[in-house]
Amino acid sequence: MQIAQVNVPADLIHFGVGQPGFDLLPLDLLRRAAAHRLGQDEPALLQYGLETGSGYFRQALAGFLSQGYGTAVSPDHLFTTNGISQALDMLCTLLTRPGDTIFVEDPTYFLALDIFRDHHLRIISLPVDDDGLIVEALEEKLQAEKPVFVYTIPTFQNPSSVTLSLSRRQRLVELSQTHGFYVLADEVYQLLDYTAVPPQRLFHVSDRSRVISLGSFSKILAPGLRLGWIEAAPALLEQLTASGLLQSGGGLNPFTAEIVRSLLEQGWQTEFLTRLKAVYRSRAAALSRALHHYLPDAEFAEPDGGFFIWVKLPQVADTAVLLEQLRPYHVAYHPGLKFSAQQGLRQFLRLSFAFYDEAALEEGVRRLQVGLAALV
Amino acid sequence: MQIAQVNVPADLIHFGVGQPGFDLLPLDLLRRAAAHRLGQDEPALLQYGLETGSGYFRQALAGFLSQGYGTAVSPDHLFTTNGISQALDMLCTLLTRPGDTIFVEDPTYFLALDIFRDHHLRIISLPVDDDGLIVEALEEKLQAEKPVFVYTIPTFQNPSSVTLSLSRRQRLVELSQTHGFYVLADEVYQLLDYTAVPPQRLFHVSDRSRVISLGSFSKILAPGLRLGWIEAAPALLEQLTASGLLQSGGGLNPFTAEIVRSLLEQGWQTEFLTRLKAVYRSRAAALSRALHHYLPDAEFAEPDGGFFIWVKLPQVADTAVLLEQLRPYHVAYHPGLKFSAQQGLRQFLRLSFAFYDEAALEEGVRRLQVGLAALV
Repeated sequence: MQIAQVNVPADLIHFGVGQPGFDLLPLDLLRRAAAHRLGQDEPALLQYGLETGSGYFRQALAGFLSQGYGTAVSPDHLFTTNGISQALDMLCTLLTRPGDTIFVEDPTYFLALDIFRDHHLRIISLPVDDDGLIVEALEEKLQAEKPVFVYTIPTFQNPSSVTLSLSRRQRLVELSQTHGFYVLADEVYQLLDYTAVPPQRLFHVSDRSRVISLGSFSKILAPGLRLGWIEAAPALLEQLTASGLLQSGGGLNPFTAEIVRSLLEQGWQTEFLTRLKAVYRSRAAALSRALHHYLPDAEFAEPDGGFFIWVKLPQVADTAVLLEQLRPYHVAYHPGLKFSAQQGLRQFLRLSFAFYDEAALEEGVRRLQVGLAALV
Repeated sequence: MQIAQVNVPADLIHFGVGQPGFDLLPLDLLRRAAAHRLGQDEPALLQYGLETGSGYFRQALAGFLSQGYGTAVSPDHLFTTNGISQALDMLCTLLTRPGDTIFVEDPTYFLALDIFRDHHLRIISLPVDDDGLIVEALEEKLQAEKPVFVYTIPTFQNPSSVTLSLSRRQRLVELSQTHGFYVLADEVYQLLDYTAVPPQRLFHVSDRSRVISLGSFSKILAPGLRLGWIEAAPALLEQLTASGLLQSGGGLNPFTAEIVRSLLEQGWQTEFLTRLKAVYRSRAAALSRALHHYLPDAEFAEPDGGFFIWVKLPQVADTAVLLEQLRPYHVAYHPGLKFSAQQGLRQFLRLSFAFYDEAALEEGVRRLQVGLAALV
């Protein structure tokens, strides 16, 4: 029987799997944290939780984030979630109505698009270049459109791995003020930098009353915890806590949050993240090397962080068609088409380096090369 | 700093608190279950979870429910949730659009109303008598209205503690077929029977393709786990698993569900529920005794299960006004008005017997009596 969502056959290397490998899941740390927290004689963690999440947890989280981001984070700006997908879903319920317009990046995280579609939103795409979202294109679109929010992955973007430049960050926050839209900043990769420190976060720009930062333990600890946070102005957090979902169920994940609190307070999360970054740095380098070696025509930038390499294959017309043709070669990926809200990006593919070790990554690229040589 | 949602001052007895008392939260059981499950070398429980929830967890849950309900429950009909509030929120997103009509009971669980309002639904109330929802009133309303769903708490209702009769259950399910609406059956108190076994559940009636049963560990284990389930036809569960929320985040609570799996598999949940029912049975009896003794004019039925006694005070015009006046007497409750979608029920109040022990329950009723004698 199955516990996990992913179920990749043993003979397939699937570069689409954008999650930590099973070898990177810290079961032992969680066992120690659970023993520590559940041994404290604090039954409150089993009660309906405070709507924003336990004060102790948010204090420990603020300490961890202040260190990781290099700038002060206040517990009063934090709200505990079940991860970024749940946060996006909740924000759509509270901020939008069906038919409302939102802006996303092109490419963007394809499964976020599904959440927006479930809320019947009108999705408009904005182009991205090497410095992230092209803010001039946003300004142009704002002449004719009134989006409720702009959904952006500003750092080590999924799938392109590009990072929004500091000047664009400042301009984006200014525009959110002038035009009255929210910026939903999905910062799930913010703490996963390997070779270059990303610019300050959007929430750090002076007037950030319309910036909503979404964070998660899914990529830095374990996805199965369904634990994340929103960082936003207290006025916005009050809207969240006043919702029926929160008033009725209480805080979203008090039991797990209190266990993770022990991990944060003991410093284990910081130690684990340091180890994790070393592994990912090495995997990113291995995947880059293999691409240079086996696919010299492939166009890509070596990522400074995150989970992905975004590859253009100039000799391929449609990577979705190619994916089907590659079946006999036991290698797969997510084609560019998946990340486009407007059916484009057909020469691109996204390769994740998070799930497999170096040897498997190299073997996967070798299979790509063999398949391409035979097919194209 | 605060962990839990509820924060009742020590000198106040608040009969509104509809949750297990802190003394009833099984911290030790959870510690044992966590040690057991996290010691199994199964990192899969930290991965993005299977959309329906872990197969092992659903199998263990099906076994527990089959025993508790006295009828077979299939793991294939189960879907893991973050509790009933989250399930209601998700079902509103997937089944409704703003402006759609839904039916609720009058009285009903007031915080569910807030979730429906967040989805901008048009809420119509149906009356309840000693046999639960008056199905004839539903039939009449169906002449003019097309609800997406009927939200009912069929067993030991919140707040009235009434239970829907078997014949009405059958008729309700028939009507859902004829008129094409869903029945959202909030069965959170189904397993908490003290003096009479409730009729078979709506999902047990022959054609139940439009019945969605909502269950939770909040009242039988611990609210802070945010763990519950939906029992429904596989076609409906497929709609849920195809949603953006599930595809992106995976199953809703894999880490906690796998810990609770150990509790279920070891038989600890069944043992705990037996102990819990004995405590609640005794508390319900104590509250009834105190009401008979101190407030002989109060009209109420002794509950056969659940968490509440629903009291009518014939000498009081508005229990919401009375609540304010009772402040100096250090006793509180939820006034009937809160449970009405149409501003009625002003002579009623809901008393919970779940949170306090027998002595506190009696003392609370004594304070009510003293206050009433001085005020009315």
